[in-house]
Amino acid sequence: MVMAYFLDNFWGEKNNGFDVLYHNMKHGQISTKELSEFIRERSAIEEAYSRSMTKLAKSTSNCTQLGTFGPVWDVFKTSTEKLGTCHLELVKKLQDLIKDLQKYGEEQLKAHKKTKEEVSGTLEAVQNIQSITQSLQKAKELYNIKCVEHERLKKEGAAPKEIEKAAIKAKKATESYKTCVEKYAAVKSDFEQKMAETAQKFQDIEEAHLIRVKEIIGCFSHSVSEVHIQIGQVHEDFINNMENITVDSLLQKFAESKGTGKERPGPIEFEECNAAVAVEGVKQ
Amino acid sequence: MVMAYFLDNFWGEKNNGFDVLYHNMKHGQISTKELSEFIRERSAIEEAYSRSMTKLAKSTSNCTQLGTFGPVWDVFKTSTEKLGTCHLELVKKLQDLIKDLQKYGEEQLKAHKKTKEEVSGTLEAVQNIQSITQSLQKAKELYNIKCVEHERLKKEGAAPKEIEKAAIKAKKATESYKTCVEKYAAVKSDFEQKMAETAQKFQDIEEAHLIRVKEIIGCFSHSVSEVHIQIGQVHEDFINNMENITVDSLLQKFAESKGTGKERPGPIEFEECNAAVAVEGVKQ
Repeated sequence: MVMAYFLDNFWGEKNNGFDVLYHNMKHGQISTKELSEFIRERSAIEEAYSRSMTKLAKSTSNCTQLGTFGPVWDVFKTSTEKLGTCHLELVKKLQDLIKDLQKYGEEQLKAHKKTKEEVSGTLEAVQNIQSITQSLQKAKELYNIKCVEHERLKKEGAAPKEIEKAAIKAKKATESYKTCVEKYAAVKSDFEQKMAETAQKFQDIEEAHLIRVKEIIGCFSHSVSEVHIQIGQVHEDFINNMENITVDSLLQKFAESKGTGKERPGPIEFEECNAAVAVEGVKQ
Repeated sequence: MVMAYFLDNFWGEKNNGFDVLYHNMKHGQISTKELSEFIRERSAIEEAYSRSMTKLAKSTSNCTQLGTFGPVWDVFKTSTEKLGTCHLELVKKLQDLIKDLQKYGEEQLKAHKKTKEEVSGTLEAVQNIQSITQSLQKAKELYNIKCVEHERLKKEGAAPKEIEKAAIKAKKATESYKTCVEKYAAVKSDFEQKMAETAQKFQDIEEAHLIRVKEIIGCFSHSVSEVHIQIGQVHEDFINNMENITVDSLLQKFAESKGTGKERPGPIEFEECNAAVAVEGVKQ
């Protein structure tokens, strides 16, 4: 159960809490966009890395296959290709996340529009209390001025007509001040009720937003970790394959494929010419 | 104990084994260079990735710190920076490996030059056996031709002078053939002994080369795996840090830093003007 942080902390003298909370909601849209932009950039980095790896894997085909070392390049090639594939897989996962974020951003925009309408009454109540607070202040000041003025004239023994005039003004100011005090009480009560509801609504919106965005960040972590495990497997396979290509097997493979023959030069004896038979042969 | 693959497989009719083994040794230099080139390219890829990550980490500073989501960017920033650092560490390790390979390449070149001198006697023995094998063939053919010629003249009852002449030629060819047979026996024995030694020497060189290169590949795997573990730690930290930034804590943090006040608007009562005191005050 999340505490009522917003309900408790957005009051204060100037009654600006509504404004701060409303803008905070709008910042939620910015954070959705920025998170999407961050993941897009990360995806671009992974894609570039993946492409470079694939290119590097291909380049091993140009390495000499002659000599005993030749077969080792296949191990490098396979492993490097697989690394490229792993990072490309991450790119795909991140692209999916960006789509999720875009979809969420659209929903968020709609929800905020709806909220804006729903809290329009609160905005009005804020304006009312800000306005009545000012009016009340002015009315109070005027009331004091007029009372003092009336009192001064009386003390100075001014003309009865002037005193009478001042008394009417003081009475008018008193009524106006009293009206403001009554109106303030009504506006204050309305504001307090609406602001309390709205503050809670803004907190609920914010809470839902943070939960959703954190879910997406969770997917991001999960994708990164999953691919990290796959990459670990590629490294392990590389180590195993390298171990399997023993020095002995490389020497043997080379001897078998490039060998020139197992027979050492044989002894050559003097072979006597059987000239008589050869001559007969020629004659025939 | 590696079997004597080279000693057993590089004989054959044409006695080309020496040539094949000598060139194989030279290919060892190419494979050292190519491996160095491969690691250099891999290092360049890691460096580009590292730079992009560092740039991405910096870009999070431009993300809005306003709103409840603000503090989450710090987690992204730290993690992305660390990823950049991990890959840069791999770059450093690979650069060290390239230096090792360069050093080894120089040693290899020197060793091959020394070997070239050491096996010059074998190269001569190869040339000798190839040359004597040809000469012997020709001498044998000439001997047969001359013997048959002599026999033919005798059978046809040619002039004694001519028969006499042919007999001398046949005798000369016989001696020449016999000399070749003897020479061949000596050359063959020399060749066989030298070629056997050299084949084993070439195998030893190849074995040492493969062991050294596989050691360096082992270091390569080790570096890659080591950094992979560090990267895994960065991912784990990211997940933990994200979990620690709860939705509750984000709402609380926002309320504390951006809160406008805890006091709800107070009641405002009508305050009567103490005009008499006010007028006294003005007078003083």
